Amino acid sequence: MLQEPTEFEDSMSSESRLFGAIEAGGTKFVCAIGDESGTIHEELRFPTADPASTLAQACAFLKDRGGDPLRAIGAACFGPVILDRRSPHYGFIGKTPKIGWNNVDIAGLLSREFSCPIGFDTDVNAAALAEQGWGAGRDIDNLVYLTVGTGIGGGVIVGGLPVHGLMHPEIGHVYPRRHPLDVNFAGICPFHGDCLEGLASGPAIVARAGSDLAHLDPAHVQWELQADYLGQLCAQLVLTVSPQRIIIGGGVMSQDRLFPLVRQRMQHWLAGYVDRPEILGADRYLVPPALGAQSGVLGALKLAVSAARGA
Amino acid sequence: MLQEPTEFEDSMSSESRLFGAIEAGGTKFVCAIGDESGTIHEELRFPTADPASTLAQACAFLKDRGGDPLRAIGAACFGPVILDRRSPHYGFIGKTPKIGWNNVDIAGLLSREFSCPIGFDTDVNAAALAEQGWGAGRDIDNLVYLTVGTGIGGGVIVGGLPVHGLMHPEIGHVYPRRHPLDVNFAGICPFHGDCLEGLASGPAIVARAGSDLAHLDPAHVQWELQADYLGQLCAQLVLTVSPQRIIIGGGVMSQDRLFPLVRQRMQHWLAGYVDRPEILGADRYLVPPALGAQSGVLGALKLAVSAARGA
Repeated sequence: MLQEPTEFEDSMSSESRLFGAIEAGGTKFVCAIGDESGTIHEELRFPTADPASTLAQACAFLKDRGGDPLRAIGAACFGPVILDRRSPHYGFIGKTPKIGWNNVDIAGLLSREFSCPIGFDTDVNAAALAEQGWGAGRDIDNLVYLTVGTGIGGGVIVGGLPVHGLMHPEIGHVYPRRHPLDVNFAGICPFHGDCLEGLASGPAIVARAGSDLAHLDPAHVQWELQADYLGQLCAQLVLTVSPQRIIIGGGVMSQDRLFPLVRQRMQHWLAGYVDRPEILGADRYLVPPALGAQSGVLGALKLAVSAARGA
Repeated sequence: MLQEPTEFEDSMSSESRLFGAIEAGGTKFVCAIGDESGTIHEELRFPTADPASTLAQACAFLKDRGGDPLRAIGAACFGPVILDRRSPHYGFIGKTPKIGWNNVDIAGLLSREFSCPIGFDTDVNAAALAEQGWGAGRDIDNLVYLTVGTGIGGGVIVGGLPVHGLMHPEIGHVYPRRHPLDVNFAGICPFHGDCLEGLASGPAIVARAGSDLAHLDPAHVQWELQADYLGQLCAQLVLTVSPQRIIIGGGVMSQDRLFPLVRQRMQHWLAGYVDRPEILGADRYLVPPALGAQSGVLGALKLAVSAARGA
């Protein structure tokens, strides 16, 4: 969706048409200028360093607009983050293992630097909103977006809005049942050992099998384990938040052949209890993202659009 | 909350002040007339028989109002139910093992018999709404209501509204990890064997331990198993829907000493990952219902009040 603005669009530019987007990731920042249609006009990517210099670089990019103020800015941030608007720490990053980033006030900094409304949410809630608005979840009010890569995370949309509550979903840390062919691996999550992230994230696969999925024979047991753990997660989600669709992205899921395997295992664990046609013919239920690597920054753009509307 | 109307209240009665409520349970129906404050003026309980005679009895009670029409009626129904308003089967009971009740059109029947708005939801979503409005979840927008008795069910409120989505939550059928002291019991769920309902419902306890909790010594291993399975469930819910409070009712939970044990096990499974004070001092986080056995019929009343407001 990265496009050069056309001459027509350029002539239409006005202060009320452009939004700022910041995807604040643990390893890289993606900053962009975009519009309400989900079109990105400019984009800048750079590695995440210390908070002061990283955030200064993001602000400098967003300010360099030739005098056009932005209508709103959205920040989609690695977690945990504080989303309770009644908290004095609203808009902060919470207790993170990422050195230097504990208790950094992201939304507050943006509010001080810019006079426009600021949207703020987790990277995965934002990606879920982007997929709902412009991607694989169009016209669906209840969906889950999962990413399976360096870690495992999930955003949840219920009734069209991202789930916050006490904090926000941390789906990667639920405990699947151990597969009978996976009894010796302890898992790699520093908090939980063998929670889902500890068993089925990219680094967990490498720790157990000595290689990532792309380099493992399709007959290797790792494929079966991976499909089973993710299928269990999807079944749990169906029973808990009843999404109308589950979108799974992230580096591990770039192995397309995982999808039919995960669908099978989801159905195995549901055991016919949820006999909806959407589940039984799950090809359209459990799908890859449509926005790919852009889902994060487009999620930030979506947060900006929502913030401009006062949501 | 069952009260005789005072003379003053009685003289205030008008067609716009009273609501009808039907708690449609698998073993009994509770029908009531109540008002917006959660006060029940009249109540009738009777065993659930075949759909035609049972629903006729419910309608007769609600019609016997001396000519005062009801402002709205709410039906809180055992599941599964169809909540998708775009479905031709909206308001129906789905595929239930309860003989004769498959595909019964509850909301449609009420719409034909009464001219007022009809609210319809699962019994547990309704109980969650009642606890939120008048009970242990006052002023909280995100909560889970669990009932642990003959079965295990859960209602989920996100952003003030009950979760529907593809269907509705069926929390009783998630799979906890098996406790190391519980390896031989196969579980009793006809669909899943050893899902949560199969391991930790009232009948599961009796099947495993030969007695209900009330008759087991506090040192009996069953207490530990029960606390562990429910603690796992609560941890999973924290990580998935991030409730601000979890309310647990039902016959099994009438054993008060379960609460501190379940809180401990929830914290064990979260392993410090969610370091919110609400979780760490969980006495006010994981609580019994305030409405007790009335939560179902008050839930139906709440559905009626919402329906009158067009929600």
